[in-house]
Amino acid sequence: MPNYYDKLDSVLRALADPTRRAIVERLAKSPAVVSELAAPFSMALPSLMQHLRLLENAGLVTSQKQGRVRTVSLRPGALDVLHLWLGEQRTSAERQADRLGMHLIRATPKET
Amino acid sequence: MPNYYDKLDSVLRALADPTRRAIVERLAKSPAVVSELAAPFSMALPSLMQHLRLLENAGLVTSQKQGRVRTVSLRPGALDVLHLWLGEQRTSAERQADRLGMHLIRATPKET
Repeated sequence: MPNYYDKLDSVLRALADPTRRAIVERLAKSPAVVSELAAPFSMALPSLMQHLRLLENAGLVTSQKQGRVRTVSLRPGALDVLHLWLGEQRTSAERQADRLGMHLIRATPKET
Repeated sequence: MPNYYDKLDSVLRALADPTRRAIVERLAKSPAVVSELAAPFSMALPSLMQHLRLLENAGLVTSQKQGRVRTVSLRPGALDVLHLWLGEQRTSAERQADRLGMHLIRATPKET
């Protein structure tokens, strides 16, 4: 099982591409068949499939084939690793702001 | 001023690199001078400066030079655009789950 940093890495690499991000945005609304996903992009199907494979490898999407139709879904909790990382940075930055605030309070001469 | 999608794009591209992500993590704790930032990486200074420039262009960090010392800080609210985007995807995905839930409730035969 990939560790937290490997997972974060592959999720961010996957989302750094605008086409893949648009696919994730579309799938957050509902699952879709591949032809539906391809429609908004002027892109050959093999290129789209390559993006989908990368999203699947990053654990962001999952797909099922029934007959000749492949349906792609956003994997539940797919973006949790990014939420977690952002939360950690925010906590660090808030602590930093608090320390700065405390410093300013201490540095301000008291009114007498 | 860059629009939301341009900003999101440059932030995600910046964070897709593990070195740049490590710099952001370090700066979330406190501002740092360039030599401090360079210390954990076995990397030539020009490469580090290139990463810092990319982070600065993405609006993630800001830097100030005093004499020969450059101090780099995380820009307040730097990651807000990513928070916003994640929130939007989560809202969409939750609505999808709610609709599925409603569908299941409707599809379940009532007990008589």
